[in-house]
Amino acid sequence: MEEKKFKVYLKEKQELIDSALDSLLSREDIFPMILHRAMRYSVLAPGKRIRPILCLAACMAVGGKEEDALAPACALEMIHAYSLIHDDLPAMDDDDLRRGRPTLHRAFNEGTAILAGDALLTLAFEVVAVAKRLTDRQVRQIITELAIGAGHRGMVGGQQADLNAEGKTITPEELKYIHSHKTGALLVASVLCGAIIGDAGPKQMVHLKKYGQANGLAFQIKDDLLDIEGKSAKLGKSTGQDKKAEKATYPSIWGIEASREKLKEATATAFALLESFGEEAEPLREIARFIGEREA
Amino acid sequence: MEEKKFKVYLKEKQELIDSALDSLLSREDIFPMILHRAMRYSVLAPGKRIRPILCLAACMAVGGKEEDALAPACALEMIHAYSLIHDDLPAMDDDDLRRGRPTLHRAFNEGTAILAGDALLTLAFEVVAVAKRLTDRQVRQIITELAIGAGHRGMVGGQQADLNAEGKTITPEELKYIHSHKTGALLVASVLCGAIIGDAGPKQMVHLKKYGQANGLAFQIKDDLLDIEGKSAKLGKSTGQDKKAEKATYPSIWGIEASREKLKEATATAFALLESFGEEAEPLREIARFIGEREA
Repeated sequence: MEEKKFKVYLKEKQELIDSALDSLLSREDIFPMILHRAMRYSVLAPGKRIRPILCLAACMAVGGKEEDALAPACALEMIHAYSLIHDDLPAMDDDDLRRGRPTLHRAFNEGTAILAGDALLTLAFEVVAVAKRLTDRQVRQIITELAIGAGHRGMVGGQQADLNAEGKTITPEELKYIHSHKTGALLVASVLCGAIIGDAGPKQMVHLKKYGQANGLAFQIKDDLLDIEGKSAKLGKSTGQDKKAEKATYPSIWGIEASREKLKEATATAFALLESFGEEAEPLREIARFIGEREA
Repeated sequence: MEEKKFKVYLKEKQELIDSALDSLLSREDIFPMILHRAMRYSVLAPGKRIRPILCLAACMAVGGKEEDALAPACALEMIHAYSLIHDDLPAMDDDDLRRGRPTLHRAFNEGTAILAGDALLTLAFEVVAVAKRLTDRQVRQIITELAIGAGHRGMVGGQQADLNAEGKTITPEELKYIHSHKTGALLVASVLCGAIIGDAGPKQMVHLKKYGQANGLAFQIKDDLLDIEGKSAKLGKSTGQDKKAEKATYPSIWGIEASREKLKEATATAFALLESFGEEAEPLREIARFIGEREA
């Protein structure tokens, strides 16, 4: 796929997902309207929608139907949005800016931010459980992967390790643990959910899982590099935050040059893992390229 | 069932649930041990285990097997524990004491409390999804009920409405909304999950849902009364908290005597709804009695 064609693909899928998220959050019958508004404020904020697109693309890569993957894709974005909300809280990263706008607890208040995060995490599981296009068996498998990826052995575990590490010197192994859990686990779950929906075979599952892991590593190295080199306006969040918080990052441990090298390696690994896949996996390949080269 | 026999029943079920929760949280391989400890601190704190016991009892009442209901019962307690953790946070109720011990954010720290709550909510869904004794169809139905009961149309919606109402004068209708959602919704889900596991018929479902609602109302009126009349030592949390926070409660709106009257009515309604059930529903009847008469 040429770069221009992929940009069109990305935009098309982002719109597809945003429109699905919009309808999933359209109910006007919620009594505490502030909660409804807070949930929408966070989930519908402009974003790359990497996780849902990974889910759609993985489903397609194994011959599944994109529309079958749409509900779980939205669930993944809800989990991602909830994690950002809670991560931004004063007791965590204490961030003021997210996706180009005030963080939820700044725009609303802290209590509402905690609850909107809780509500989005819960809604994610509901959205999967009631998805008409999924079999009972798929629902069960997807919820298992989502919970493993998002929970204490996945994303939340990584956030906790990150919280513990603030202001401390940590080893490269500890840093890898943090990132592979904090960011990587949900990226892996995104790919696995798509694979489940497309009824992937066991071998495909293994390759796609490893592809997700390589992507996760690339994603975080790039994130760390962008925090140093990126522009706040493009990123939609403050840069230099990691240094300010004395957070360990790949560049702070490996140096900038070595980090760039490892980023390239991770992207190459992701590519290699897709070798046995055909043209249907082209979006997955492009996503790997995009993750390593993005500017925001 | 005589009172003494019911006390034995309660204690037996509490031990059954505590032991199941203990094994579900026994993994020693969690890298951020503090997260593991925080989750255990909250879930395994002494408690009445009303929600899981309701789940077991509802399952039995429709002829199901208790052991089939054990995993979802634990999930309900995890959701309850998470809601207490987040509700106690400084940005919410700002409580120092819970179940006779410092609240989680006091015993650990605020960031860890937020994450432990998140992790418990996520684990609850995982525990149901991987429960070997449940069919795929039951898993799907249970997760739907849990999410509806716990999410923005249920418990979290009620917590948000409660947060919004602080320091304001609210109508009896608004108070009923808050409580039927904040407390009632998860109690209803507890009963419904048990009913799903026991393969209840549609009529039984309707009766059990209404039984859960009546129980929820009774539970909250009693809670409000205990906050005024109860002893801090027995409750394991500070009393007079509602007045301190200028929270609307049933006694503050209806007066103490009328609240006691409404409590009796709700308990009677719960009993009436079980009329078509046989002896297997005896625990459900005793739980309704217990909710109205408990001293903590």
